[in-house]
Amino acid sequence: MTPRIIELRKGLLKKNDVLAASLRERFREANLHVVNLVSGPGTGKTALLERTLKTLDDSGLKTAALVGDLETDNDAQRLARSGVPVRQIKTHGICHLEAEMVERHLIETGWDLAALDVLFIENVGNLVCTSSFDLGESLRVALLSVTEGEDKPRKYPGLFHSADAAVITKIDLAEPCEFDREAAYAHLRAVAPGIKILETSSKTGQGMDDWVGLILDHRTDREKL
Amino acid sequence: MTPRIIELRKGLLKKNDVLAASLRERFREANLHVVNLVSGPGTGKTALLERTLKTLDDSGLKTAALVGDLETDNDAQRLARSGVPVRQIKTHGICHLEAEMVERHLIETGWDLAALDVLFIENVGNLVCTSSFDLGESLRVALLSVTEGEDKPRKYPGLFHSADAAVITKIDLAEPCEFDREAAYAHLRAVAPGIKILETSSKTGQGMDDWVGLILDHRTDREKL
Repeated sequence: MTPRIIELRKGLLKKNDVLAASLRERFREANLHVVNLVSGPGTGKTALLERTLKTLDDSGLKTAALVGDLETDNDAQRLARSGVPVRQIKTHGICHLEAEMVERHLIETGWDLAALDVLFIENVGNLVCTSSFDLGESLRVALLSVTEGEDKPRKYPGLFHSADAAVITKIDLAEPCEFDREAAYAHLRAVAPGIKILETSSKTGQGMDDWVGLILDHRTDREKL
Repeated sequence: MTPRIIELRKGLLKKNDVLAASLRERFREANLHVVNLVSGPGTGKTALLERTLKTLDDSGLKTAALVGDLETDNDAQRLARSGVPVRQIKTHGICHLEAEMVERHLIETGWDLAALDVLFIENVGNLVCTSSFDLGESLRVALLSVTEGEDKPRKYPGLFHSADAAVITKIDLAEPCEFDREAAYAHLRAVAPGIKILETSSKTGQGMDDWVGLILDHRTDREKL
C-alpha cells in the first residue's frame, strides 16, 4: 500500500470506529446482544449459525442474522430456512463488513431492535480486513476449522487477537484431517493469551451446548453492567 | 470504500499491471515458467507445493518458490525442506502479493532467473485481492478444497474467473466432508466456462501426475510461442 492509501485507510478506520461506537450504544439501549462471527472462507460460519439458530429456538430468545458476502445471497437463503429474520449485505468486492453497511441495513430492514434479543452478524470470509472493522458488536468470535492449518492464528494474529472467543469448527473431521489440537491451542494462546476456546461440530452437534452457553452467559454478563 | 480510495486503488492496479508486464517479459527472456497459486487460507497451497516440488525432483527441471504471508515464514520453512531455493515475502498486513514485491525479492534473492526452469509463487491466502494483482506469471491456478463450500467460486468469482486452471485439493477428504463434486464443477464452470479442473490429494498423491503434467504441458506450449 502506498502512504496515501495507508493515510486514507486510517481515516476510514477512524470514521468506522466512531460509527461503531454509536451503533454499540444503540444496541445497548435496545438491550440487543450482537455477535460478530469472523473467519476465513470455508471455516463453517454459516453451518455454525444454522445450528446455533436451531439450538436457540427453544430458548424463547428472539434472534436474527445479518450476513455479509461479496456477490451471492446463498448463505442468507440457507439461514432463512431456520425461520428467523435474515438479511444479506452484498459488499460487491469489498472483503469485509463496515459499521456503515450494518447501520444502513438495519434501517432498510426496519427491524425493531428492541424486539430482538440476539443479532448474529456473519462477516465476509476473510482473515485480514474483517478484524480491523468494529461493527458495534458486544461479542466477537473468530472461527478456526480443523481442516485449515493449525498455525492460522500466527499467520493472521490480528483476527484472533481482536476476538473475545475462538471456536474450533468441524471437530468431527479432526481425525481424518490429523488435526493437532495441542498445536492449535498453543498458536491461539500465543497471539491471544487467555482467549476462551471452544470446539464444535455443526454436523454432529458436539460442543453446541457450550457454545450457546457462552453466548447466553455473555449476554447476561452484559445486562449486569 | 470511499470514491477517493477506489480511485487510488485503480492507480495502484494500473501501476501493478505495468510492472507485471515488464516482469512477464523478463521471465520470458529467461525462459522461466512462473506459476501463481491463489486460494483462500487453509486450502492447502503449501502442501500441494511441497508434493509438487518433490514430484518434479526427478524431472531434471530447476525449480524455486516465492511464498507470500502476512507475518510468518512457516510456509517457507516447510518448503525449504524440499531442498529447492525458497524465499519468503512478508507482506506485513497486506492481504496479497504485488508485482513490486515479487520484483524486489527477485533482486534481493539474487537468483539467476535463466538458471531456473519453473518458479512457483504461493500467494497470500485470500480469495479477494489476490485476483486483482498480476504478478507476471504465465499460469495462474486457483485452489478449492473439498473442506470448503462448493459454492466458493460463485462467492468469489473474480479469483476463479481470472485463473487458467482450478485444482480441487484434499480430495482424500471428499467422503468425510460429503463433498458434492457435481455442484463444485457446476459452480466453477458458471464463473469460468471451459476452465481446466483437476483433483489432487497432497496426502495420498492422487492426481499429482495430472497436475505436474499440466504444468509441464503449459511450459512446453509457451516455449512454442
